[in-house]
Amino acid sequence: MKLSPAQLEQFETEGWLFLPECFDAEEIALLRREAEVINRLDREEVWREKSGVARTAFAAHTYNEAYRRLAAHPRLVEPVMQLLDGPVYMHQNKINAKAAFDGEVWQWHQDYGTWQRDDDMPEPRAMNIALFLDEVTAVNGPLFIVPKSHKAGTLEAGHDLETTSYPLWTLDRETVKRLADAGGIVAPQGKAGSVLMFHSNIVHASPPNISPWPRTIVYLSLCHVDNHIRRFQRAEWIAHRDFTPIEPLGDDCLRDLARADAPAGAAATQAAE
Amino acid sequence: MKLSPAQLEQFETEGWLFLPECFDAEEIALLRREAEVINRLDREEVWREKSGVARTAFAAHTYNEAYRRLAAHPRLVEPVMQLLDGPVYMHQNKINAKAAFDGEVWQWHQDYGTWQRDDDMPEPRAMNIALFLDEVTAVNGPLFIVPKSHKAGTLEAGHDLETTSYPLWTLDRETVKRLADAGGIVAPQGKAGSVLMFHSNIVHASPPNISPWPRTIVYLSLCHVDNHIRRFQRAEWIAHRDFTPIEPLGDDCLRDLARADAPAGAAATQAAE
Repeated sequence: MKLSPAQLEQFETEGWLFLPECFDAEEIALLRREAEVINRLDREEVWREKSGVARTAFAAHTYNEAYRRLAAHPRLVEPVMQLLDGPVYMHQNKINAKAAFDGEVWQWHQDYGTWQRDDDMPEPRAMNIALFLDEVTAVNGPLFIVPKSHKAGTLEAGHDLETTSYPLWTLDRETVKRLADAGGIVAPQGKAGSVLMFHSNIVHASPPNISPWPRTIVYLSLCHVDNHIRRFQRAEWIAHRDFTPIEPLGDDCLRDLARADAPAGAAATQAAE
Repeated sequence: MKLSPAQLEQFETEGWLFLPECFDAEEIALLRREAEVINRLDREEVWREKSGVARTAFAAHTYNEAYRRLAAHPRLVEPVMQLLDGPVYMHQNKINAKAAFDGEVWQWHQDYGTWQRDDDMPEPRAMNIALFLDEVTAVNGPLFIVPKSHKAGTLEAGHDLETTSYPLWTLDRETVKRLADAGGIVAPQGKAGSVLMFHSNIVHASPPNISPWPRTIVYLSLCHVDNHIRRFQRAEWIAHRDFTPIEPLGDDCLRDLARADAPAGAAATQAAE
């Protein structure tokens, strides 16, 4: 899978790209089923909201076969290699559950702000690619993105340890308003299987999910291998230290697993316990 | 202004109607300016979020000339007289500010649930008509409506005194999920000046506004005069006791005020202090 010149241009100008329905129903069913298994695990990688429901499962690719394959899926990894112009490694991998009724806010932030301050990643030569496991609509906590904000550099931020269970470097209100007045705010929506890519300096947030439906998104944060992190203060399963270039698997890697007789992903998860 | 047979049918079936851009820029500018004046008033009718910003200004039609005229505006009152089949009075009148960054959630509820339990309104022969003073988009806390839920009758509810500064009879999660799975959820969006009408038994909510832009909506809750409330336990400015039928004013009533030389609305507000 290759991005077109027009797509490369949009990413360069706007800082984000949306690709509707890149993964099919069979692949998504597998990933949803495995995400449910993972969210029930009592592991330190599975963070919970104040209510107890799963908020973020980190590093599932290290203990679940379906997510191991997703983390090297050519439809995710190859476009990022193209945009970052070279081999990439997995800096962070997470399943953000945003549970029905209980899914909490993510305040306005830039991901690179955290990667730089906490992990000493030299440059914003890293980015996110997100896969929707549920349909995302206006009602279940879509991601809000400020187009063009990736041109603003790495902005001043404060370390928010209170709003939610997850520490985050968040931006001040004047900055968010100034950038949003200039670039607007988009809330990309689409069916399960859709893919959203955004620059590591793009300003984004997401509101609570007050709907009765979940809104799960899987994020791969991929970084050029030359740009690997220098500081190892966060847990290895939050900010990875394996800088081996990812070799993309075949396009059928998830379908093959879904079609295997045994529920292989579930078995692999248990084996890893 | 009259609703068409198709619109009457949609309201009957779905429980809501959206009318884009019913009021023009001149009328909206007047109402926004006056809302800002009102939200700065130190009056018991102006309720605030925990942060101190205005959440709801009640009964502005009793102390502001622009809102007095809006409360008898034919583009709002006449369609409701048509739907409720007779003369109406003002049961409740509010400006819901939903401030930028700070505007809080309204949990899932039916308005008639409160009007019945708190005010002893005999039947759901009353409804809301809402006017957008700001553009409403996916990012600034749009109203979420469960179509067809007005057919479910008046549902069991618990009295939520904790989530926000405003007490509300809210629905349990199983009920919301059951109705939303059946009817879906819509989040009507449109420019300032648009009008949203919904049945007093429609299940609705709205998420916090985490965007840097305000989202102010004016609500008239109109009730058939025969169906007036019987219990007077809430403040008169929350649940009105003047059951006089509203006489719709002329279609130019707000434009005339906007064009008057003096800032008449502001003057009237001061005079009422």
